[in-house]
Amino acid sequence: MGLDHAATKPHEQLARHLDNKMAAVNTLIRERMASRHAPRIPEVTAHLVDAGGKRLRPMLTLATADMCGYGGAFDVHLAATVEFIHTATLLHDDVVDESQQRRGRPTANLLWDNKSSVLVGDYLFARAFQLMVEPGNLRVLDILSNAAAVIAEGEVLQLSAARDLKTDESIYLQVVRGKTAALFSAATEVGGVIADAPEAQIKALFEYGDALGIAFQIVDDLLDYQGDSSATGKNVGDDFRERKLTLPVIKAVAAADETERAFWVRTIEKGRQEDGDLEQAMALLTRHGALEATRRDALSWATKAKSAMDALPDHPVRRMLIDLADYVVARIN
Amino acid sequence: MGLDHAATKPHEQLARHLDNKMAAVNTLIRERMASRHAPRIPEVTAHLVDAGGKRLRPMLTLATADMCGYGGAFDVHLAATVEFIHTATLLHDDVVDESQQRRGRPTANLLWDNKSSVLVGDYLFARAFQLMVEPGNLRVLDILSNAAAVIAEGEVLQLSAARDLKTDESIYLQVVRGKTAALFSAATEVGGVIADAPEAQIKALFEYGDALGIAFQIVDDLLDYQGDSSATGKNVGDDFRERKLTLPVIKAVAAADETERAFWVRTIEKGRQEDGDLEQAMALLTRHGALEATRRDALSWATKAKSAMDALPDHPVRRMLIDLADYVVARIN
Repeated sequence: MGLDHAATKPHEQLARHLDNKMAAVNTLIRERMASRHAPRIPEVTAHLVDAGGKRLRPMLTLATADMCGYGGAFDVHLAATVEFIHTATLLHDDVVDESQQRRGRPTANLLWDNKSSVLVGDYLFARAFQLMVEPGNLRVLDILSNAAAVIAEGEVLQLSAARDLKTDESIYLQVVRGKTAALFSAATEVGGVIADAPEAQIKALFEYGDALGIAFQIVDDLLDYQGDSSATGKNVGDDFRERKLTLPVIKAVAAADETERAFWVRTIEKGRQEDGDLEQAMALLTRHGALEATRRDALSWATKAKSAMDALPDHPVRRMLIDLADYVVARIN
Repeated sequence: MGLDHAATKPHEQLARHLDNKMAAVNTLIRERMASRHAPRIPEVTAHLVDAGGKRLRPMLTLATADMCGYGGAFDVHLAATVEFIHTATLLHDDVVDESQQRRGRPTANLLWDNKSSVLVGDYLFARAFQLMVEPGNLRVLDILSNAAAVIAEGEVLQLSAARDLKTDESIYLQVVRGKTAALFSAATEVGGVIADAPEAQIKALFEYGDALGIAFQIVDDLLDYQGDSSATGKNVGDDFRERKLTLPVIKAVAAADETERAFWVRTIEKGRQEDGDLEQAMALLTRHGALEATRRDALSWATKAKSAMDALPDHPVRRMLIDLADYVVARIN
């Protein structure tokens, strides 16, 4: 615990407020990612876990449990579960995307091999399920196993939807719920469930996580087209070059005339990209106001997340979660 | 249900005895492998599920629940869970092994791609966890999530142990428990747990599944060196060519003199194989009685499985499970 300075970022405020619990989560993660028999497992996992990241998802579970007055120790198990599911997903994603870098380091599939990434990911999934069983709460198990299915379903859907111009905003939302929002909303919902919060609060916690996750992903997709690469660490246009049909392009395709459509078919569906295509794509996104409309969508999801907090009790964490929703969209606002 | 002819194979007797339940398992599998949003999922899964296989693992769960007097409907959920975990493992194994064929058909990674196999496998794992939560039995969840971790750990261990001459019989056993026996023993144990059987029976059911799975895998590894390829569908020496350190070779390496050791280092560790090496390997296996010793190990595990059945009540299924243990080693006896 400590003083909260207005200048501190909301996830840093949360980390400070929950520092004892976060330390317990980190200890539990290290304990459970070990393997007596297969030393390759902690090697691969430590590579990813040490690289860190903000630990946003486990923090959401601790935060919501705290806000709802939970006094037990199992929030730590659930937070570690959520981080294990996230880490397993990253390992498998990097195989699927043939990624080279993650959190500023070479990916595990590059340092070891795809086999290790697939199997160590499976190990972490299994460890996640072991962890989530320990609190002995069937509703929590239901929520987290359901989230795992939605995540995998979203990833498979993305395989077929990513380069298909028929992908519309509702399919995009489905994919985004799978790849990002399902774990956010499960993380926030189980915090309320383990704390035995009233149903209206649990529902609001789900809605907060869902909307926050969607806003988070839309911002990511928008910054790919208009971000400052020195700040995002990504190059502008990566998604275009990788032929990913994200929200800005979906909006531009929906408004495209025949010539423009032919451009998208050639560059995204067929992948025959030429010099100047990214500039042309940016021009089309601008012409149809697709970037501006995407920005408005992200802000609207952030607003939805904040409104969900109306149902929650007055508590220091509540303010931090509201600020977090603002912070997620601050880079585009 | 029906008459049991002595000439019928034990797994066919079990299938006939449990035909209504097996039909319910198949229906549930079809229902749960569906995906409203991602049609790729049922395509990939159906490819594997339609190819069939003997459905030995789900049958073990139904059989042990039946033998212990279970009268409810959740044995069907647990049997489907076990088959989903098995199918997910196969999908990921084929990616890891870069396999081309499975159950006489091209593998999913060949027909679609590695991405689909990884992600659809993840989906099936998640669906398995959803299914296993439904009976609301925490002990069952503990057993199955633990089995999933042992499976993944065994697979990772195999990655590093497969071509390492330091791999001894205890490491081999660890790998075999992971890749085969852990799911067998979980399948038989949860049957007893869901039926609320006495502890001594549950322990015996675990031991039966564990020993049966180990016998099953040792037979597989032995037949790779001395099987009739028209009966096994595999070519003699596949494991040698793929540099897999299985039990016969582990035994021969343990008894090797300096020259022989150099042969194994060159062919298995370094993978520099030449014409005539398989014949030389076979000669070394024979010289040290490694095949015969492996055969004795398999028979001894089958005997252990049968002895475990002493703790179980008199029941038609009990005889079938004893016969099944004999049947598993019949091909080498």
